[in-house]
Amino acid sequence: MDLTALRKANPEHWAKATAIRTLTLDAVAAANSGHSGMPMGMADVATVLFEKHLKFDAANPTWPDRDRFILSAGHGSMLIYSLLYLTGNPHITLDEIRNFRQLGAKTAGHPENFLAEGIETTTGPLGQGIANAVGFAIAEEVQRAHYGKKVVDHYTYVIAGDGCLMEGVSQEAIGLAGRLELGKLIVFWDDNNITIDGTVDMADRTDQVERFRASNWHVIEIDGHDPAAIDAAIIEAKTTDMPTMIACESHIALGHAAQDTSKGHGALTDQQQLEAAKEAYGWPHGAFEIPADVKSAWEAIGARGADARAAWEERFAQISERKQGEFNRAYAGDTPKKLTSAIRALKKQVSEDQPKLATRAASEKVLGVVNPILTETIGGSADLSGSNNTKTADLGVFLPENRKGRYIHYGIREHGMASAMNGMALHGGIRPYGGTFMAFTDYARPAMRLAALMKIPTVFVMTHDSIGLGEDGPTHQPVEHLAISRATPNTHVFRPADMVETAEAWELALTSKDTPAVLSLTRQGLPTVRSEHKTKNLTAQGAYVLADAEGKRQAILIATGSEVSIAMEAKAKLEAEGIGTRVVSMPCMELFAAQDEAYRKRVLPGGPVRVGIEAAVRLGGWDRWLLGERGREAKAGFIGMSSFGASAPAGELYEHFGITADATVSKVKELLG
Amino acid sequence: MDLTALRKANPEHWAKATAIRTLTLDAVAAANSGHSGMPMGMADVATVLFEKHLKFDAANPTWPDRDRFILSAGHGSMLIYSLLYLTGNPHITLDEIRNFRQLGAKTAGHPENFLAEGIETTTGPLGQGIANAVGFAIAEEVQRAHYGKKVVDHYTYVIAGDGCLMEGVSQEAIGLAGRLELGKLIVFWDDNNITIDGTVDMADRTDQVERFRASNWHVIEIDGHDPAAIDAAIIEAKTTDMPTMIACESHIALGHAAQDTSKGHGALTDQQQLEAAKEAYGWPHGAFEIPADVKSAWEAIGARGADARAAWEERFAQISERKQGEFNRAYAGDTPKKLTSAIRALKKQVSEDQPKLATRAASEKVLGVVNPILTETIGGSADLSGSNNTKTADLGVFLPENRKGRYIHYGIREHGMASAMNGMALHGGIRPYGGTFMAFTDYARPAMRLAALMKIPTVFVMTHDSIGLGEDGPTHQPVEHLAISRATPNTHVFRPADMVETAEAWELALTSKDTPAVLSLTRQGLPTVRSEHKTKNLTAQGAYVLADAEGKRQAILIATGSEVSIAMEAKAKLEAEGIGTRVVSMPCMELFAAQDEAYRKRVLPGGPVRVGIEAAVRLGGWDRWLLGERGREAKAGFIGMSSFGASAPAGELYEHFGITADATVSKVKELLG
Repeated sequence: MDLTALRKANPEHWAKATAIRTLTLDAVAAANSGHSGMPMGMADVATVLFEKHLKFDAANPTWPDRDRFILSAGHGSMLIYSLLYLTGNPHITLDEIRNFRQLGAKTAGHPENFLAEGIETTTGPLGQGIANAVGFAIAEEVQRAHYGKKVVDHYTYVIAGDGCLMEGVSQEAIGLAGRLELGKLIVFWDDNNITIDGTVDMADRTDQVERFRASNWHVIEIDGHDPAAIDAAIIEAKTTDMPTMIACESHIALGHAAQDTSKGHGALTDQQQLEAAKEAYGWPHGAFEIPADVKSAWEAIGARGADARAAWEERFAQISERKQGEFNRAYAGDTPKKLTSAIRALKKQVSEDQPKLATRAASEKVLGVVNPILTETIGGSADLSGSNNTKTADLGVFLPENRKGRYIHYGIREHGMASAMNGMALHGGIRPYGGTFMAFTDYARPAMRLAALMKIPTVFVMTHDSIGLGEDGPTHQPVEHLAISRATPNTHVFRPADMVETAEAWELALTSKDTPAVLSLTRQGLPTVRSEHKTKNLTAQGAYVLADAEGKRQAILIATGSEVSIAMEAKAKLEAEGIGTRVVSMPCMELFAAQDEAYRKRVLPGGPVRVGIEAAVRLGGWDRWLLGERGREAKAGFIGMSSFGASAPAGELYEHFGITADATVSKVKELLG
Repeated sequence: MDLTALRKANPEHWAKATAIRTLTLDAVAAANSGHSGMPMGMADVATVLFEKHLKFDAANPTWPDRDRFILSAGHGSMLIYSLLYLTGNPHITLDEIRNFRQLGAKTAGHPENFLAEGIETTTGPLGQGIANAVGFAIAEEVQRAHYGKKVVDHYTYVIAGDGCLMEGVSQEAIGLAGRLELGKLIVFWDDNNITIDGTVDMADRTDQVERFRASNWHVIEIDGHDPAAIDAAIIEAKTTDMPTMIACESHIALGHAAQDTSKGHGALTDQQQLEAAKEAYGWPHGAFEIPADVKSAWEAIGARGADARAAWEERFAQISERKQGEFNRAYAGDTPKKLTSAIRALKKQVSEDQPKLATRAASEKVLGVVNPILTETIGGSADLSGSNNTKTADLGVFLPENRKGRYIHYGIREHGMASAMNGMALHGGIRPYGGTFMAFTDYARPAMRLAALMKIPTVFVMTHDSIGLGEDGPTHQPVEHLAISRATPNTHVFRPADMVETAEAWELALTSKDTPAVLSLTRQGLPTVRSEHKTKNLTAQGAYVLADAEGKRQAILIATGSEVSIAMEAKAKLEAEGIGTRVVSMPCMELFAAQDEAYRKRVLPGGPVRVGIEAAVRLGGWDRWLLGERGREAKAGFIGMSSFGASAPAGELYEHFGITADATVSKVKELLG
């Protein structure tokens, strides 16, 4: 590239873009780690986008009707940090830039949404940003349909690299966005032809333009260093009803000795080469130094949206107070008071009726109560609507012809669904939930982990949660998936025993503001074990005494979900033999761990032998409760799975794998000696 | 469809295909569960493929040079069971068909490779089969280049449905296959426009033909019920150098009342409708009844390959004895004796040199010794070759112009890589290993689980295995991933402490025949802790006493990987204070659990306090060893992670999260009281 020609053609643009490039070089050099090349290659695109199109007010980074900017190629984090600092974001100061990648800095190695307002999502694991963006765009469409375009009318912009597009989740995102005709989604593809191992060509020769077109995207191809072309492409993208991909031919590490090489992808820290690059840019300034005129020009961009924001606030004030209240409540992540009373009424009814019901079916009934009250829920399933029981009658299907629809047929795309749900939760004002079989936690994992890391309350409805699914066999039978989610920090795994606990779990999931929930639900029918109505949400304590020993307490059975009724059956048999047995239902280990020690001791006193019952592997957190968290507490055993399952009717499998009341009784007696 | 016209046009074909359809209907009805529609829709394609093209000998289903047939749409398992039974596979008898989906039957809900020879891979989780197939086709190319086409020359055929193609992993597979020009890979797309939730159109409007073409596939579009068109398409597909996708327009549940509906996808058990379908087929036979002439015709197809197999055996006998030996050894999954001695020599050298080395770098050195000896290894990385240290000098890169290359640049496709590796392992004669960052276990999970379920020894090289990766931050720092893999049945998770243990772990991974290995390797440098050479592979015991207490044993420190040297440092400090401390290195919990109780007791005797040290969550199997597997054994504590990590230099993170020798010392003293 002839940098001088670029500079002379548009010196003001050049100075602004170069500010990004040099901040990147300086920050990466100071940290002695990071990724220099991507921000340097996409600085022109980002500059034009922020200067001419992105609707934002740097001083108010959470203004609800802002355009969303998502850096899917999250390793290029200095791009977003530079933009935030230059435009005057209150959180990303020059000190933060200087502390890039250091402990406690908001400028983490990859952008973390929870460190600074203005960072819309956490990216780095490739493909997540573009898949989140589908959720952002869905959220915008749904809210625009609900509140009107005077209140909600914004774009979702994404910068994605070759890595994002090679990850399979991108195909799920592209396919879904194309089908749903998310016209306000605009993706810039950083077409620099470089990955870590070498040129893209080493591993891929996919024609990305044709690939996007095959999924109904509008595609524009431009020189990613030509400001006029970038501007024209964005203008064109805004006119189409389909999502747009702008293929930006770019040079990674533009102007550096490592330009157009995979070395340029990484940390460019050589001081001499750094100086040479700055010289080639015509940038005589010191490290981290941005000339006042350039900073002012960028700050003007950051302030450009203030009027639009003020105008928006006026328009917002004009909608009905009810709508305003609903909007503000949903954005705050609050639930209406009515929800609690409705859940309580449902619990009371269930305790009386005592239905025998699969918890997935119970979940559908709970959603039937929840969805009309919580207008911000968006449900869905990865092509298992009837099996996951996620669709309630009132929702309507979200499609181009029905933007008010609140149910999404995600297709056979568990990963894309989970990422899109995260995007909706991050967008604000939406409570997404979506279902698949629990074994397919595996497919959704990258996004489930990010929900936990990002502190967002996405709800993952995982049905068919054990060998209880029966004939579909071991590929479809989770045995380690409770362990997987329980091992993940900041995740609440609920495994309700009946419809009462299912209602309680949903209440907790829907009132959470910063912790995702995994609902582990059965395929098979279960009796109601909570036959005595309690107003209090007992699931909130994580575990509780469901039924105490009748005589002297010799054994404690701890069970979750479908195995609680087995524990109750075992208790009856044990009591009949004079062995006093307590049954503890433990629908959420994480919440139980969060109770004070006195409560935990009350539920699980030392002394009696303990048997855990769960149709899953013991490694899923059991030893802490069985062996005693303080050590030396009890003799203990476990009734569960230690291998993969098998294909057969559910009842036979429970017998075959020895997860029965009789096996529990034997284990207790063996421990009592 | 006019079934009568179809039948009259080609009565012999019709009878054979109808045998598949009616066996499917009868088996699903008997099981009262399963998926009828897919086998009914694809019976014509499968019949033509098996009759006219598939090179196989039903009596010898493991003949190495057979064509591979992969049912990616695994829910349609009755298709493959019907084909195996009809052609005379010795394992799938009519009794097995009658016992479809019952406990102990080889005819599980989804096809399981380990239940019957002839089932090439386990499918059901969608997209896996097509991604496995890429590995099968790579294996064939590599072996053909190595042994010559007189010995290796076969096709890989796949039937994939809309579900497979919507899953993101299919894009990874398609992109990789297109780039690698796997011309002997032929995929039939069952284009029936139906998914569980409804028509495909509800969730996807991707033009699959254009999508495949964009990734350099040859595409042919046919009527999937026209035998002549099917035959012509396969003939054409064989002539191209590129992978071929044959789009087969088909009718799910052909001829049944549920034809072309999503009901047709599931279990069609209504007896009256079943009879009506049979009548429409012109099939007056009873349940499970196949007329002798039809069965004979199918058995002739099954026997068709016997001559080809005999001819192959003659050709095989003509290659050098050395090559024959190598071929047979690799197919048997055996390793040359030389491997053990080479590993021992390396260990001895390392014990003397005592390098300070990251275990990922140690791994590269081990591979440098292994790869020249084990000519069947195929290495690779998901675009992190330099970071995963998976590429050794001698391998060469596998590309269309270098089929002898043994290293694959998989691109940014962790899931596709893992599935392709599984395919290579299943193909036989290949030992695949591949790398990514351990946090991206999440991306590869569906295939990692299947490796364990399928009992194949795929090796997953997971580097950057803790907060020790430093500045890239929490998105890239695994904390729960050891737990995830340890919770998975039939998986060996190795976390070596230094180069000696790394060599031992590789030896175990490479000599395994039916258990996959996860190698958890550091980014950061580690001292050699195994400074005294032992010929014996100590890692094979899972855990062992690395250094015993000098005085009275008051504490046992149990650590893995990078934390073993921290344990050694803590021991030195504790001993200096007169607290006798044993250090147990535990590179593989699963192998330790498999030792006899006497050994486990010897390593972890009751009495002394125990502290576990691992820069990961405690839930990853620790409580069993800390609290005492027999209960009431020891007071215990854990030094590790209970949250996500952070972005900072590695050393600072270890301090910040309290994973240090000093913290360990304090914990021991606290427990000693």
